[in-house]
Amino acid sequence: MPTTTRPIIAFSGSVLDRADALRSDPVALAALRGRGDARLLGMDGLEPVVSAAGALVWQAMTAAPDAELLFLGLDGDGAPHFAPVPQAGSTAPAASTLWSAVEAMAAPDLAAYAAARALGGWHARHRFCAVCGAPTVLAKGGWQRSCTSDTCRAEHFPRTDPVVIMTVEHQGRLLLGRQPRFPAHRYSALAGFVEPGETLEEAVTREIREEAGLTIRDVRYVASQPWPFPASLMFACHAYTDDPAITIDTNELEDARWFTRDEVAEAMDARAQGRDGIAFSAPTQVAVAWHLLDIWLHGAG
Amino acid sequence: MPTTTRPIIAFSGSVLDRADALRSDPVALAALRGRGDARLLGMDGLEPVVSAAGALVWQAMTAAPDAELLFLGLDGDGAPHFAPVPQAGSTAPAASTLWSAVEAMAAPDLAAYAAARALGGWHARHRFCAVCGAPTVLAKGGWQRSCTSDTCRAEHFPRTDPVVIMTVEHQGRLLLGRQPRFPAHRYSALAGFVEPGETLEEAVTREIREEAGLTIRDVRYVASQPWPFPASLMFACHAYTDDPAITIDTNELEDARWFTRDEVAEAMDARAQGRDGIAFSAPTQVAVAWHLLDIWLHGAG
Repeated sequence: MPTTTRPIIAFSGSVLDRADALRSDPVALAALRGRGDARLLGMDGLEPVVSAAGALVWQAMTAAPDAELLFLGLDGDGAPHFAPVPQAGSTAPAASTLWSAVEAMAAPDLAAYAAARALGGWHARHRFCAVCGAPTVLAKGGWQRSCTSDTCRAEHFPRTDPVVIMTVEHQGRLLLGRQPRFPAHRYSALAGFVEPGETLEEAVTREIREEAGLTIRDVRYVASQPWPFPASLMFACHAYTDDPAITIDTNELEDARWFTRDEVAEAMDARAQGRDGIAFSAPTQVAVAWHLLDIWLHGAG
Repeated sequence: MPTTTRPIIAFSGSVLDRADALRSDPVALAALRGRGDARLLGMDGLEPVVSAAGALVWQAMTAAPDAELLFLGLDGDGAPHFAPVPQAGSTAPAASTLWSAVEAMAAPDLAAYAAARALGGWHARHRFCAVCGAPTVLAKGGWQRSCTSDTCRAEHFPRTDPVVIMTVEHQGRLLLGRQPRFPAHRYSALAGFVEPGETLEEAVTREIREEAGLTIRDVRYVASQPWPFPASLMFACHAYTDDPAITIDTNELEDARWFTRDEVAEAMDARAQGRDGIAFSAPTQVAVAWHLLDIWLHGAG
């Protein structure tokens, strides 16, 4: 059993009440915006503005009096929280301090940022109607965009892409792989998008067959995580195989192999101390893959 | 324990290998299309053409020699299966025989139709680029659309919307509700879309609070189901509450109340015989809600 408190899954644990009934009420939204206790999230495009203490920065609404706004919800005191809509086409900067900021940020901040980034990123890439090509406008406090063409009037909603991420076990060893873009020595759980016309369990089975050539059984859901880069919902799963012969899809993976429980435990202990393990470099604690490995080692309790 | 074989979750259980590596190979795709054993799914817009025996109709490719195609995958003999891309703007007809067809269709047919309908419906509503408004063209055997603007070139992927659907238990009774659009007397599990910036479990908690005013605990994932109307992935969950006082969101629900185990069992037995129960009309077997109720009564084994 772990002796320290386990971190909550990063980007979850929001303390804001989304108050969805208010989204459809333009008068109420305008009143919320005008309140003295209303707060606007400091954002630089899709990246958070971070204080010296590593926290999100919530500004007075006067910081951006004409900004188009996303209504994130109400805090425990009823104060309305908003985020700005990013400019059209906003994308993540190539060089970013985001990850060091994310790893230092408290859970409620990460959760508020997750909603603001996923929703904001969707607005940045959906200024036009996919049905007819006409411009769209923001609606319902940012939780909808509406086509401006009188003959179309399509309604569009924020997109969330389900992704499966999974560990496979064989005789007490765990399958992990590395993508070419990973940091040196890093191995993590394999992952892929769920496709139309398949269950979560079928997506896990297909991805493991495609990427590692393994036939699996007994797929089990473990946990989920919102991952706003740009708009994923991660479904962490665990499965078993009876035949450990790996065939890698070299288009997706640089390597995949079996790690013993001792190797995983050492790499996770090393990660907790901010360094790479001996057999491999374990995933960061902000990734749900970290929780998959932690739960495999120590159980969910 | 149930004495008859439980149906598999409708729209899952595809027997086609999606063979995703072929999608990126235009030469291979053209060769597949030209093969004598290639098969094209009979579709009428978004609805399936159904044989007198209630099966999908797979035609020779000569049935539509110039059709734009979605590559669904290879069957057990290696024969390639395709579906036609529906016309732009295709929507479900107001009067449809779809549901009687769906309830009579074999599992592998339903799964093939689920992929064809979800993917086809996406193409019908994504002829234009949401980033810049320019026309898009089909790519990768139908698993992508690409913007035709030289200055944009955005790539777009099929959309799958995660939805939570959940039962809540209090002292052996089950919370079920009815939407105004439901058939008479029908009660089912409550449901709602997962939003950006929340886990599956947080979405379940939020939806039950919004729609029924209940605070829940111990949310447990039970099963998932692709639901191609138009593009949902249903996550069936079960949870508990310690306070059964219901406050209904009348914008979403017409009623919600607690049903005893005996009432649910009687309604499920009645459904198996094609009729409504006494306390309520149970959901159809093609809905994952049916499985939630069945597993609650009989366990997952």
